[in-house]
Amino acid sequence: MACPDVQNTGKEMQRLVRELYPICRSITGNGVRETLKALSNHIPLEIREVASGTRVFDWTVPKEWNIKRAYVKDPEGQEILDFQRSNLHVLNYSIPIDKTVSLEELREHLYSVPEHPDWIPYRTSYYKENWGFCLTHNQLQGLSTGEYEVLIDASLEDGYLTYGEYCLKGESDREILISAHICHPSLANDNLSGIALAVFLAKSLKELSLRYSYRFLLIPGTIGSITWLSLNETEAFRIKHGLVLTCVGDPGKVTYKKSRRGDTEIDRAVTQVLRDSGDPFEIREFSPYGYDERQFCSPGFNLPVGCFMRTSHGEFPEYHTSADDLSFVRPECLADSFLKCQAVLRILEQNKIYVTLNPKCEPQLGKRGLYGQIGGQADGKLRELAMLWVLNLSDGNHSLLDIAEKSGLEFRMIRNAAEALMQHDLLAESIP
Amino acid sequence: MACPDVQNTGKEMQRLVRELYPICRSITGNGVRETLKALSNHIPLEIREVASGTRVFDWTVPKEWNIKRAYVKDPEGQEILDFQRSNLHVLNYSIPIDKTVSLEELREHLYSVPEHPDWIPYRTSYYKENWGFCLTHNQLQGLSTGEYEVLIDASLEDGYLTYGEYCLKGESDREILISAHICHPSLANDNLSGIALAVFLAKSLKELSLRYSYRFLLIPGTIGSITWLSLNETEAFRIKHGLVLTCVGDPGKVTYKKSRRGDTEIDRAVTQVLRDSGDPFEIREFSPYGYDERQFCSPGFNLPVGCFMRTSHGEFPEYHTSADDLSFVRPECLADSFLKCQAVLRILEQNKIYVTLNPKCEPQLGKRGLYGQIGGQADGKLRELAMLWVLNLSDGNHSLLDIAEKSGLEFRMIRNAAEALMQHDLLAESIP
Amino acid sequence: MACPDVQNTGKEMQRLVRELYPICRSITGNGVRETLKALSNHIPLEIREVASGTRVFDWTVPKEWNIKRAYVKDPEGQEILDFQRSNLHVLNYSIPIDKTVSLEELREHLYSVPEHPDWIPYRTSYYKENWGFCLTHNQLQGLSTGEYEVLIDASLEDGYLTYGEYCLKGESDREILISAHICHPSLANDNLSGIALAVFLAKSLKELSLRYSYRFLLIPGTIGSITWLSLNETEAFRIKHGLVLTCVGDPGKVTYKKSRRGDTEIDRAVTQVLRDSGDPFEIREFSPYGYDERQFCSPGFNLPVGCFMRTSHGEFPEYHTSADDLSFVRPECLADSFLKCQAVLRILEQNKIYVTLNPKCEPQLGKRGLYGQIGGQADGKLRELAMLWVLNLSDGNHSLLDIAEKSGLEFRMIRNAAEALMQHDLLAESIP
Repeated sequence: MACPDVQNTGKEMQRLVRELYPICRSITGNGVRETLKALSNHIPLEIREVASGTRVFDWTVPKEWNIKRAYVKDPEGQEILDFQRSNLHVLNYSIPIDKTVSLEELREHLYSVPEHPDWIPYRTSYYKENWGFCLTHNQLQGLSTGEYEVLIDASLEDGYLTYGEYCLKGESDREILISAHICHPSLANDNLSGIALAVFLAKSLKELSLRYSYRFLLIPGTIGSITWLSLNETEAFRIKHGLVLTCVGDPGKVTYKKSRRGDTEIDRAVTQVLRDSGDPFEIREFSPYGYDERQFCSPGFNLPVGCFMRTSHGEFPEYHTSADDLSFVRPECLADSFLKCQAVLRILEQNKIYVTLNPKCEPQLGKRGLYGQIGGQADGKLRELAMLWVLNLSDGNHSLLDIAEKSGLEFRMIRNAAEALMQHDLLAESIP
Repeated sequence: MACPDVQNTGKEMQRLVRELYPICRSITGNGVRETLKALSNHIPLEIREVASGTRVFDWTVPKEWNIKRAYVKDPEGQEILDFQRSNLHVLNYSIPIDKTVSLEELREHLYSVPEHPDWIPYRTSYYKENWGFCLTHNQLQGLSTGEYEVLIDASLEDGYLTYGEYCLKGESDREILISAHICHPSLANDNLSGIALAVFLAKSLKELSLRYSYRFLLIPGTIGSITWLSLNETEAFRIKHGLVLTCVGDPGKVTYKKSRRGDTEIDRAVTQVLRDSGDPFEIREFSPYGYDERQFCSPGFNLPVGCFMRTSHGEFPEYHTSADDLSFVRPECLADSFLKCQAVLRILEQNKIYVTLNPKCEPQLGKRGLYGQIGGQADGKLRELAMLWVLNLSDGNHSLLDIAEKSGLEFRMIRNAAEALMQHDLLAESIP
Repeated sequence: MACPDVQNTGKEMQRLVRELYPICRSITGNGVRETLKALSNHIPLEIREVASGTRVFDWTVPKEWNIKRAYVKDPEGQEILDFQRSNLHVLNYSIPIDKTVSLEELREHLYSVPEHPDWIPYRTSYYKENWGFCLTHNQLQGLSTGEYEVLIDASLEDGYLTYGEYCLKGESDREILISAHICHPSLANDNLSGIALAVFLAKSLKELSLRYSYRFLLIPGTIGSITWLSLNETEAFRIKHGLVLTCVGDPGKVTYKKSRRGDTEIDRAVTQVLRDSGDPFEIREFSPYGYDERQFCSPGFNLPVGCFMRTSHGEFPEYHTSADDLSFVRPECLADSFLKCQAVLRILEQNKIYVTLNPKCEPQLGKRGLYGQIGGQADGKLRELAMLWVLNLSDGNHSLLDIAEKSGLEFRMIRNAAEALMQHDLLAESIP
């Protein structure tokens, strides 16, 4: 069970999710700016603006989208859909429109979820100009024939793509990347939970003395990572470990999708944390479908970046609908994701190679007070076993994580054993 | 379900099996010549004759065996066994005999199958001179004491070993070998089904533009492959992939025995086809017992040749008995084997390495019409997923077959995705 | 089932266990000397004495412990614990004591096993000076308050650490190590069974012509192997294969703990023997907790030494108690362990690499009488199959053990096939 302090963190994360929930975000525009401004109250975020039309690899930074209001009025002049009530009602990135259309024409621009007739779907049209509305299937089926007045008071004009970046300097300039997407409107698990987790991880690191440097990216999905990679093509190769965070607040078990390489330290560190936790979890091989790990793991970068989730996108029915709301994301699940990611970062910080200073035969632990004094008992204690593992495998070829994996013991125990042995001059850090 | 065209192929294959069934084949002699002549109506077979006594590695080409007639007459002078009724009645490669013997002596030369008292077994004595008859166990048990007249009007004399070879030239002189044995008399699945499959594969390739050259061998088992390898010791190393075909017409699931190396492209291509098929199948490790893959995979050659079967030799009760007859081999099973081998050859022809021309981040598929336009739907379509896999793994190190294996998608889908990407200049063939 | 001869060996081993059982052994002292003297009746053991105070790596050879008598008298002057009745009653390596103590003080020096109230535990205090008694939990609970007279007439003085060594010279000076610990008092399975097995293996090798040299070590646990390794630091690297023997007389299944490297020939030879046996068994990965393999497998040595046991230490309730007595160790189990270790040594002696003299195609086994003469039978016999495997894999890269593993056939069959092929000049030993 999480300690009171962590319960508190879960509630604070939930509070941040609630604060950001009403904002109508998209891949560009004021929704993103407003979101990043709110996050700046928590961490000293640098806000970047990249002009529309900028070439970023095979892509072009798109126009900036902003929306003031939108509605549909029925033949009786009744406002039946209103952007103010839910920003999901408007096809995200919709072009402006102001006209009267027949029900037939309107229907071609309406989106619903027949399987869940009470939910509003979330739909986008980024790269093809289009207009549209999303609504519940019940409402869709109740529409009567006649003329409808549709208004989308939006602008799609040259402007900027906006993202936030926060760099925390450690001993080394080798980096750990934490990335979350910030381009979805009122969706709580997909987007806001990941943002909250990234921000609270950043806050928790601020006061620590760190071995690695950390880079937090809060970016619109796909085009954001492509833009960042294009602008930081060389810089990107400093990233030694990375996590994309998404859908981390639902009550499902943790799912981790491995990096393209599949055997990197981040992959093994996450696996170790999940194994140590005793909770159910699932490890998946890399696939080129998902979030921004697709770009970080494109073959020309092939960075060691995995994706940390609870229930994976598309595998919970609430995904990309109005049901992915504030009630779907729970403080205790946010807190659990936070604790697990913290443990992953702790492993990365602590995972070094040590060498035993007594390679030939075991050193005598007893005379140093490190070993039980009355022999002959049926089994050594786990703490002593951890010391024996560390001594046996610290031959310059095994890191602490290697030893945890081989021994089946928790990383924490292995790390503590190494500490104790170092205090007694039985172990030393290996010179790389 | 097979399309009408393939159903037709199955029936034509069955027709060929029926045509060849009555011929009394052995490892040498006119039965083989007659068989090869019949096959020449389908493909332009080159017929080779190698003289008895020729040294082929540790072996010697044996004498030529021919048989005119054979019978056994009982003490009453009744003809109780007649070679005309079934060529299985005579021990294959039997020396000539013409004498009267007691039942006791006769019994030492009679073979039956007690577990299946109505079936005639198939027995041979190639490398030790002997005479004998095969009969049903029921008949064996009904024999009364007395003098029996036995006649085998056969000749075992210097002559030739005969085999057929058909070479189809492709772009490259690297070869795909297809081999089947032609040394069994009236056995339909063991021998004739493999011959029919080899011939119809050859026919189906004739009009295609081919990357590889193909070599079809129709040879007596063991001594035939040893002879061919001995006469083509250097040539043999052109073989880059190979299949021995046998027992491919029974209704059992497909069984594939891997090459000695165990991880060659042919092994992986067959596995992929069988997996893609959705039908049950079995993959076995190499073992040095079986058909001519034993010789192709002997350590001095170690060629990448596997064995494609349905039910493996010795694992169906009809094996090497009169029950392996025309009713045991079914046109739809022959057609299924044909389709699967064709798919294997298609993979070998199409399995190349490509490189993405946009290694850094994904290219924008949407602007090229390669991607769904309305985003936010729960899951990308398989076709799009296949494109993402091809783009992500086409780094110069992964062939299309590698990508199919890693993605779990059908080879056909991966191949189609590569085609589409090439048409949009997103992918190019890797220069080897 | 074991043959009469082996049943006899089991009984002789049991006789040796019985002879050694009453002796009060410890890591040093006359108990060890007496034990080694008894073993000298079986094998020409060299007895080594290493002075107390000698530095051996991180350790120091401890003082010599000898004990004459020990008792506890209750408040009524009744002798309630007597060393003569069981040497387990005295905390092994206890300092001398002769005083009167209250029940409260006494209790701090008493050890029992609450879960088995009738058993006396075995406890030691080698590296911290202490005194104590072990007794049944029933007896402990019956003690009444009052003054107790305790006497341990023992000496802990500078002297020697004693161990036995027996070297058997083979063709090569590469060695096989067999090691057993000799430091436990009246414990039959843990200690005496391993000693008996080592001695009888040594006896069984004496008359054989051997490829390897053999070194048998009969040493006190931990400090003994550390001492030997320290005195033989260079010599140790002659050890090419090794087994620590312990707990080999109980009726449990054989358990083998692999060497630290995990894939050495000894690991594979033991696995093969256990698989060939058809009996249940268990193979475990190396862990740095157990017997003297901990020292042989310390990273500075990393010798290919595994641990051969039946039920592992600490996994049978009788472990380190008075219930590990003569009835717990059974002659048929000792004999089974003996046979299996003998088979392991046989594999090591016989496991060579051969090369086929006919690498291209199979040689003709039939003309040499090595193959069944009537072909066409449903399956070749195992003996013939073993010959085909040996011929196919004897390419200079596969040892007989490799071939046994790949074929799934018993090592014995593979070895016999190789013999037969060599007799017919079809196979030759590979020049290393």
